Amino acid sequence: MKIAIEPVRDRYLVEAVTAAGSEVVALDDAEALVWIGGPDGFPELGDDVRWVALSTAGIERFVDADVLDDRRLWTNASGFYAAGVAEHALALLLAGLRQINTAVREHWAKELIDPAVRTLRGSTVAIIGAGGIGRELAPLLKACGATVIAVNRSGREIPGADLTLAATRLDEVWERTDHVVLAAPDTPETRHLIDDETLARLHPHTWIVNIARGPLIDQAALCRALADGVIAGAALDVTDPEPPADDDPLWSLPNVIITPHVANPASGLTREMAPFLAENVRRHEAGEELLAVVTPGAGY
Amino acid sequence: MKIAIEPVRDRYLVEAVTAAGSEVVALDDAEALVWIGGPDGFPELGDDVRWVALSTAGIERFVDADVLDDRRLWTNASGFYAAGVAEHALALLLAGLRQINTAVREHWAKELIDPAVRTLRGSTVAIIGAGGIGRELAPLLKACGATVIAVNRSGREIPGADLTLAATRLDEVWERTDHVVLAAPDTPETRHLIDDETLARLHPHTWIVNIARGPLIDQAALCRALADGVIAGAALDVTDPEPPADDDPLWSLPNVIITPHVANPASGLTREMAPFLAENVRRHEAGEELLAVVTPGAGY
Repeated sequence: MKIAIEPVRDRYLVEAVTAAGSEVVALDDAEALVWIGGPDGFPELGDDVRWVALSTAGIERFVDADVLDDRRLWTNASGFYAAGVAEHALALLLAGLRQINTAVREHWAKELIDPAVRTLRGSTVAIIGAGGIGRELAPLLKACGATVIAVNRSGREIPGADLTLAATRLDEVWERTDHVVLAAPDTPETRHLIDDETLARLHPHTWIVNIARGPLIDQAALCRALADGVIAGAALDVTDPEPPADDDPLWSLPNVIITPHVANPASGLTREMAPFLAENVRRHEAGEELLAVVTPGAGY
Repeated sequence: MKIAIEPVRDRYLVEAVTAAGSEVVALDDAEALVWIGGPDGFPELGDDVRWVALSTAGIERFVDADVLDDRRLWTNASGFYAAGVAEHALALLLAGLRQINTAVREHWAKELIDPAVRTLRGSTVAIIGAGGIGRELAPLLKACGATVIAVNRSGREIPGADLTLAATRLDEVWERTDHVVLAAPDTPETRHLIDDETLARLHPHTWIVNIARGPLIDQAALCRALADGVIAGAALDVTDPEPPADDDPLWSLPNVIITPHVANPASGLTREMAPFLAENVRRHEAGEELLAVVTPGAGY
């Protein structure tokens, strides 16, 4: 098929499309569009374009900009970066448990750090919103000796987790878990999932990791809980807003680690995406169901 | 058997010894001594004491203080803390690859961090001095998608590693590996294993992790390599000396993470050691070979 790659003809994606037997063409001649930008500058599309492959994992900004329509098939990159994001989640959780935040800030603060070091071995970790990332993360946590509770909308079992619960049973998780990893999409249902009430049900040794979307956490409530020792710490790759304002209390709390939304670094993005794009091109040619089809109404 | 626990009767160890069917007694009546201190204050022992169980992983300080003799059996705690130390090594390596050092120091430095983020997936990690810690660490690295080269004195295969080499073949490792984890004892042979020459054979993206002993690294050479971009970074739980002096260049290099010798935190030490002590008591009663017997001449 004839595929346009816009707004730049990224070489990894050109190679992937060509290797899959398709032709890279200008948008005017295209039957499909691979779009590796944000919603700004997204082109007007004719009906010839039957499939648009977006390169982002989340599509909130495209939904907000009213880019999506029902005149063609849309895919995103959900799940394509799952293994890398899972690695980042593990890095954040271990950095918290091993007090690397304090170690970087304070020189050889052994009296502070030694009693605060925790281990994943024997602990329970809940992955809230366990889909592609959860499937990659669960075996990493298991290898480290943790028990994994996965929570997702359907309750469909996550291989590698010790227990998968449907989101309707989320209420049972808070007291049972030592640590929480947020991996859910940002929807009205998941907004402020972590708030005063849920924080109060967690433990003083709990670390919360967020590699999903900032609005899953009521950030003011989180700051209060962190300042009061309600939980031990938060390791966040996403915040609300991004970046946090210079005077946001998150910056001054010692038990916070913030990475600047790099769990899936833009620098390696198209290289990571290339094999999945190739697979989707193959599937499209074969008339098979595509990976990561967007359900516009669901917001992900 | 009759066992003394000195200089304090730690409750975890008393429970372990009692549960193993032995009796905790005063040193004067003891056939064995569990010593959970350093070499200072180590008591004069009569010939009735046939076994001394030290609680430290390394025994250099006991060797230097001339505490060890050949009139009885000595064991240390080598390997008892292996799983925890391996977890710390993984935490340090991932923290480096995921730029958590920069993230903690600089607010939302996305331009700096995004292109510098690396992944374990597809990388090669060499564990130099792969014994008990290496056996625990190899499967963690494998779970993260890395290829593991283990190097140890005997070349005896480390389960979970892709390749185990004898230390005589260490020379083959430097160019082949992406990252290096030091887990070797401090002996004349391992001193300054990382020096100008070996650093020059590593890669600009290489992170070095040291959870073993500071003197394995020529620290001045390391600082030069870090300042010049010869390697990407160093994540150290041990230094030479400990702590580094206030004006040590290690403190001012941005690509260094230093945790204050807490891979095996003292706070949880006896709890971690207890099951292994119980096992050694059982073995001693049964006339079986003990775990972690010290070979005084070898220095570990």
